[in-house]
Amino acid sequence: MTESYKKIAIIGLGLIGGSIGLAVNRYDKSIKRIGIARTQDTLDKALERGLVDEVSNQFNEILLDCDLVILATPLSSFKSIIEEILPYLKEGCVITDTGSSKTHVIKVIEELIPEHINFVAGHPVAGTEMSGPEAGFAELFDNRWCILTPTEKTNKETLKGVLNFWKNLGAMTEVMTAEHHDKVLAITSHIPHLLAFNIVGTANDLANVTEKEVVKYSAGGFRDFTRIAASDPIMWRDIFISNSSAVLEMLNYFSKDLDDLKTAIENNNSDFLENFFNKTKEVRTNIIEAGQDTKKPDFGRYGKKTN
Amino acid sequence: MTESYKKIAIIGLGLIGGSIGLAVNRYDKSIKRIGIARTQDTLDKALERGLVDEVSNQFNEILLDCDLVILATPLSSFKSIIEEILPYLKEGCVITDTGSSKTHVIKVIEELIPEHINFVAGHPVAGTEMSGPEAGFAELFDNRWCILTPTEKTNKETLKGVLNFWKNLGAMTEVMTAEHHDKVLAITSHIPHLLAFNIVGTANDLANVTEKEVVKYSAGGFRDFTRIAASDPIMWRDIFISNSSAVLEMLNYFSKDLDDLKTAIENNNSDFLENFFNKTKEVRTNIIEAGQDTKKPDFGRYGKKTN
Repeated sequence: MTESYKKIAIIGLGLIGGSIGLAVNRYDKSIKRIGIARTQDTLDKALERGLVDEVSNQFNEILLDCDLVILATPLSSFKSIIEEILPYLKEGCVITDTGSSKTHVIKVIEELIPEHINFVAGHPVAGTEMSGPEAGFAELFDNRWCILTPTEKTNKETLKGVLNFWKNLGAMTEVMTAEHHDKVLAITSHIPHLLAFNIVGTANDLANVTEKEVVKYSAGGFRDFTRIAASDPIMWRDIFISNSSAVLEMLNYFSKDLDDLKTAIENNNSDFLENFFNKTKEVRTNIIEAGQDTKKPDFGRYGKKTN
Repeated sequence: MTESYKKIAIIGLGLIGGSIGLAVNRYDKSIKRIGIARTQDTLDKALERGLVDEVSNQFNEILLDCDLVILATPLSSFKSIIEEILPYLKEGCVITDTGSSKTHVIKVIEELIPEHINFVAGHPVAGTEMSGPEAGFAELFDNRWCILTPTEKTNKETLKGVLNFWKNLGAMTEVMTAEHHDKVLAITSHIPHLLAFNIVGTANDLANVTEKEVVKYSAGGFRDFTRIAASDPIMWRDIFISNSSAVLEMLNYFSKDLDDLKTAIENNNSDFLENFFNKTKEVRTNIIEAGQDTKKPDFGRYGKKTN
């Protein structure tokens, strides 16, 4: 079972699960897609939008014969889901996940997986601030990276099969250790989200600046932060708990740098500030050159280029 | 001279100055626009793009008969510019500015302004991460707020005239004290920029995560921060120096909240995190309802709506 999964199950039909369903269908309409979610409303919308072909709100016989099971639910649900699905999975079935934190999850999951089932952890680095069954779209993974984090227990064929699966959905793939993944994602995703949640929370609580004013003048920079601070609360709660050690480590580096900037402002140290800001400008250029963001000013919010 | 300026001078032809020139022309083609900048390259581009009608790299007779002079240069340049332009300004000429920090600037400028010249401080809360004479566009101020911060020295007719000017450029206007402006902008613009500069700087300096990785996986949230961290370094250096007291005050609130989040992560306090993240989601909805951002997922980066 290396390269062709004929029947797949997607557990969780939110932004990521829904987009996987649509991207699978874009790639190969003959693949049978099973979708599992808790609420009837989600299942109805999933069928209506064609995210999957068949749905269930329970882990049962619908999972028989699945070649691939993808966990696309919040991290804290993984343990109980694995326990519930195992009785229905056939020999050689592959399980993978889409969680944004890996070390902790792998430890929990690998303890539960029997010999006849294969597991490899994964994380598509893609998303929007939207959640729920209406949020997904087939292009979400196009030109985005999907990271797989095998361990010494991971079967080579399983790794190869799941890498190929993500490529078929439009993603570029990379393999690294779970520990390294967790540090990279802490600095590129988790800390930025934490800061965004934080500044939006702080602004909301101020006594001398009203929420109305924060909203009115948000075009000065604030609104960029509100986008990622509108991401799914449960998903992010679980990411910070699950990846706490890497997040806290990276947060220490960040806090040290923030103290330096604060000191420079206190001391009117213009040169320090100017040098610091010159450095950061360059990173943006590299991200645009790598095709990971649009070069349109203001993300093209005005619907036009300026020159 | 309340509502119709026939000849205006724009000092500084970057994003803001250039956009003012284009927006003036969109509103009334009969208004004569003088542009002043230091480098020949900027002046050439300004004429080529039609940002202004006439240019000069010096403060001289070109300023005679101007009804309105707009400072659109970094804050630290204001003092010397005012000193240099005053000899050429006619009685009743109005000076205004576009700086993002007001209290300090007003103190500096009001000391220099003679009786026969009128001054009112202003700040259009609009912009992109682009700078230079190619960055401006006529629509920049449409549906954005422009704040004026008069003092007891400000002439009522001057205030009325400048408010009207900004409305003609497409902006909505608001009047408040300079002190309040500086606190509102510290939290909605200056601190978000400081955090963005900071996280981009931290990511760039890490030993255990490469810059290449930061760029590759930036779609996880980081790239939103790089946009505003690519803003003009000199302009931002001056904003932090000029508005240091409000920035440091708001930064203290932010740091306190960050400590709370850090403690919650250390203690696996899921409930605290979930409640915090639920609150911040709502602010986004309000900003979109107020027309201050696009509701397209991911700022419409994928060029499509998802439902």
